[in-house]
Amino acid sequence: MNANIKNWGRWGQDDQQGTLNLITPEEIKTAADLVKKGKVYSLSMPLDVDGPQFPMRHKTWKTTSLLNVGEGIGFSDDVVIMHSHSGTHMDSLCHVWSDYQLYNGFDARKHVTSFGSTRNSIENVPAIVGHGILLDIAGWKGVRHLSLGETISASDLDRCAASQNTTVAAGDIVLVNTGWMNIFAQNRTLFDSGEPGLDMSCIEWLHRHDISAIGADNHGVEVITTMPPSGLPFHFAAIRDLGLYLIENLKLQPLADDKQYEFLFVAAPLPLTSAVGSPINPLAIV
Amino acid sequence: MNANIKNWGRWGQDDQQGTLNLITPEEIKTAADLVKKGKVYSLSMPLDVDGPQFPMRHKTWKTTSLLNVGEGIGFSDDVVIMHSHSGTHMDSLCHVWSDYQLYNGFDARKHVTSFGSTRNSIENVPAIVGHGILLDIAGWKGVRHLSLGETISASDLDRCAASQNTTVAAGDIVLVNTGWMNIFAQNRTLFDSGEPGLDMSCIEWLHRHDISAIGADNHGVEVITTMPPSGLPFHFAAIRDLGLYLIENLKLQPLADDKQYEFLFVAAPLPLTSAVGSPINPLAIV
Amino acid sequence: MNANIKNWGRWGQDDQQGTLNLITPEEIKTAADLVKKGKVYSLSMPLDVDGPQFPMRHKTWKTTSLLNVGEGIGFSDDVVIMHSHSGTHMDSLCHVWSDYQLYNGFDARKHVTSFGSTRNSIENVPAIVGHGILLDIAGWKGVRHLSLGETISASDLDRCAASQNTTVAAGDIVLVNTGWMNIFAQNRTLFDSGEPGLDMSCIEWLHRHDISAIGADNHGVEVITTMPPSGLPFHFAAIRDLGLYLIENLKLQPLADDKQYEFLFVAAPLPLTSAVGSPINPLAIV
Amino acid sequence: MNANIKNWGRWGQDDQQGTLNLITPEEIKTAADLVKKGKVYSLSMPLDVDGPQFPMRHKTWKTTSLLNVGEGIGFSDDVVIMHSHSGTHMDSLCHVWSDYQLYNGFDARKHVTSFGSTRNSIENVPAIVGHGILLDIAGWKGVRHLSLGETISASDLDRCAASQNTTVAAGDIVLVNTGWMNIFAQNRTLFDSGEPGLDMSCIEWLHRHDISAIGADNHGVEVITTMPPSGLPFHFAAIRDLGLYLIENLKLQPLADDKQYEFLFVAAPLPLTSAVGSPINPLAIV
Repeated sequence: MNANIKNWGRWGQDDQQGTLNLITPEEIKTAADLVKKGKVYSLSMPLDVDGPQFPMRHKTWKTTSLLNVGEGIGFSDDVVIMHSHSGTHMDSLCHVWSDYQLYNGFDARKHVTSFGSTRNSIENVPAIVGHGILLDIAGWKGVRHLSLGETISASDLDRCAASQNTTVAAGDIVLVNTGWMNIFAQNRTLFDSGEPGLDMSCIEWLHRHDISAIGADNHGVEVITTMPPSGLPFHFAAIRDLGLYLIENLKLQPLADDKQYEFLFVAAPLPLTSAVGSPINPLAIV
Repeated sequence: MNANIKNWGRWGQDDQQGTLNLITPEEIKTAADLVKKGKVYSLSMPLDVDGPQFPMRHKTWKTTSLLNVGEGIGFSDDVVIMHSHSGTHMDSLCHVWSDYQLYNGFDARKHVTSFGSTRNSIENVPAIVGHGILLDIAGWKGVRHLSLGETISASDLDRCAASQNTTVAAGDIVLVNTGWMNIFAQNRTLFDSGEPGLDMSCIEWLHRHDISAIGADNHGVEVITTMPPSGLPFHFAAIRDLGLYLIENLKLQPLADDKQYEFLFVAAPLPLTSAVGSPINPLAIV
Repeated sequence: MNANIKNWGRWGQDDQQGTLNLITPEEIKTAADLVKKGKVYSLSMPLDVDGPQFPMRHKTWKTTSLLNVGEGIGFSDDVVIMHSHSGTHMDSLCHVWSDYQLYNGFDARKHVTSFGSTRNSIENVPAIVGHGILLDIAGWKGVRHLSLGETISASDLDRCAASQNTTVAAGDIVLVNTGWMNIFAQNRTLFDSGEPGLDMSCIEWLHRHDISAIGADNHGVEVITTMPPSGLPFHFAAIRDLGLYLIENLKLQPLADDKQYEFLFVAAPLPLTSAVGSPINPLAIV
Repeated sequence: MNANIKNWGRWGQDDQQGTLNLITPEEIKTAADLVKKGKVYSLSMPLDVDGPQFPMRHKTWKTTSLLNVGEGIGFSDDVVIMHSHSGTHMDSLCHVWSDYQLYNGFDARKHVTSFGSTRNSIENVPAIVGHGILLDIAGWKGVRHLSLGETISASDLDRCAASQNTTVAAGDIVLVNTGWMNIFAQNRTLFDSGEPGLDMSCIEWLHRHDISAIGADNHGVEVITTMPPSGLPFHFAAIRDLGLYLIENLKLQPLADDKQYEFLFVAAPLPLTSAVGSPINPLAIV
């Protein structure tokens, strides 16, 4: 890894927001100016018992209750049981640690317990609103989806951006379309056996461009060759070292099909107290 | 009630989206033009074991799991157990029924079961993005919060809007600040014993203005004088008859304090398959 | 079916215990006299994420929480999420209905809701303690397990009992070893695709002998040829018509191996208020 | 504490069953001989949303699902969400640790994780079947219930036993009636603010008599003067040092009322894989 690429201390010793600091009010305003059509894309897959999910996790479980208060009159509610890292979701900055340290040097032994995390939890992210960019790697490569274990390098990101005439700027939210979600409904066994994704050369690229969040249409953003994965080095370098947000299991093909490479991006995690992640329904508005 | 105020059939016999149909692309674009400062308000209360919740419901339950994969190296995840109508949340159009009928005449007996709803479920709402308006009733009345059981009439809505110089237009999302959430942390017993809210005269007002969603900083938008409530007539008239979305337990005081009466409103429910509602983290962007 | 084989009204119009009424104090005492060795068999399969479970049900989900109260000092607890009909379990007498009627004629529409059952719920069964009998059908047939869809008739029960020199008496709890659980660990796909089990001729047999509970080492006691089953006629005739208890997913091979055909049987469901079943850990004591 | 009262190594370095080893087949047989009336007492409180529960724990949550498979024909099931230490329950021998050590010296850091415990978990207890004794302390003292924080000493146990003409023998399961459960329904606030219970002098008594399990009609067997408790020293000495089982929130008044001081005791925890406790429905059979 690149041991010296870290954002620890960059926004103060107490910072718990990481790369969210990179999004300025000016950039939010500029991103809102991208809204020309008034069209909204929901980038979320169904949060379903059979939705995309790391195969080691439990399935989302939902039961609906009916309260009848009179003849033909009633109310319904649901009981939902899920991992916070269910379906389309966002990792908080306490999702991973090494050397017992979370992003910004917080002690994992002290702060992350069965009762949640007292540092870097998801409630530190009221929302991610900013300038979103789609890098359609599958489209650039001319394939419906990259193959299992196929890597995407920093150079690929640059060349794809160039082919799209997309400029990457500080604070941007970058979404990478691998096409992997296209096989979700067709071949679940293949989908659950690994994925194409970013390799470690992208860490320096994300840091150099001061990207605020990185998402993809796969389980873990990064390339995974076996399931369970033998390690997730990109997670540690991105989340723990850079304080960078990962957004996973996105539905990106509709954006790619419409060649919508820039948009107002809006994602608002559930404000689950002390939680380490949240399912989300991110939007691209154009 | 006003038996003849209904939107059934207005958007077709098969419509499952109700007043979401009132938001046009043009209005989304116009709403995005309101973003001048690049400031984002999260309108959600913490989704917490002790968060705001109808007292008859179970508390949100969260446990964090830690997976240690090596010396000092690990991952965290959460198990979340909650009602879909937990904390700050949105009702779907199958949340209530009478005469065995849901919005648009669908048969509740056939469509709403323990396995969810096959009509009007929350997945029909990819997002609510549009022109948001705050009506600060507490501010207009010069009080920190309205009192338990105090009603807000259509006339109050008009006069408050006039005092703010706020114009209400078709498709708008209207948020009503009663100040009730201000007592949540101070007096939970009072908070849980009922609430100030809209009375039935507002139904005609909401219909006449073609409002797309109505929210408030209380449990049920409508006035509740006893808990459990003896009935929730506004719910039936709004959700079932008008196909109108209710957004509950909002945090609105920061918007009111800043006199931000108009904004780009964004709420994206979790795409829970066949669910009858969803916790949300709605945003006001200015 | 045998429309006239019913125990409705037999123990009064208000009875909610069904065949539990058949176990007399004298029989409990006699059953206790069977304890000669002081050996206890637990007849339960592990209540596990991968435990035996109707394939349409959710998996049992367990997370352990750790509370550290000082350096090296702590407490653990678990959060358990499960169906009441999980693993080795017992059906209550409100588990099934037809013609909108539960056992003893109670109206299912009125009594069984999302909030539980107000008639025939599991809390009506403080315990099943009595004279247990094992009918080792697999052993009698000389096979390790019966085959998928293989039926067991009333005549088979009689002949098996005769071969074991086992006498069946009123109030007995009858456990049928099909051997099907022997393939659980070896061939889960086969195990989950149906099962050998009792056919409808056994209903009259169970009624004639005044059996108080019937159990087996399979999902549903009765024969199932396809999964999901096309119907479960035995369930309706036994539970609803006879008020007879079904105990499912038992581990019976150790009893069969030891030729323990008679024993003190003890099963104590969790006293889940208004629940429709319960996981149990039944014991055979000899 | 009494640092030298330990059963570690007594049943081998690998033992995970602790005092369960003290119950011999001969004693089970003798206990079964106590069954003279054929009467069964269920010693469990309702496992209910409002059931007895450490006030720091979440309430048990149950939702019933209805599956309609035809006109008037259906099945019900429940979704149950609970702590393993819910209602009337049993602690496993991995429930507490100090000096990072579980009973028999196992390393808590290594063995107890979010995924359960790989030592001393509840599945090591197929059942507790043996000679049960009730010590009716409240009856002996002539009170309906002991008072909040009132202690029961080893001397009290002896004098109560003598007054009942009850002899305590090795392997016995001892249940202590404090009467505290009698106030559960009348004064929940008092019930949840602490409890009368055993003091530390009882540890030596339990060890000297080789008791296999100790139960009471309160939250924690031991005396608790404030809630949350400032410490639970009896738990550590009993569970961790002696490998002794604690059974909590029992319903004992019916046994006391009938002066049933000796009985066949049967408790069968759910075989939850790697769990640290289990709700149970213990029985006293006479």
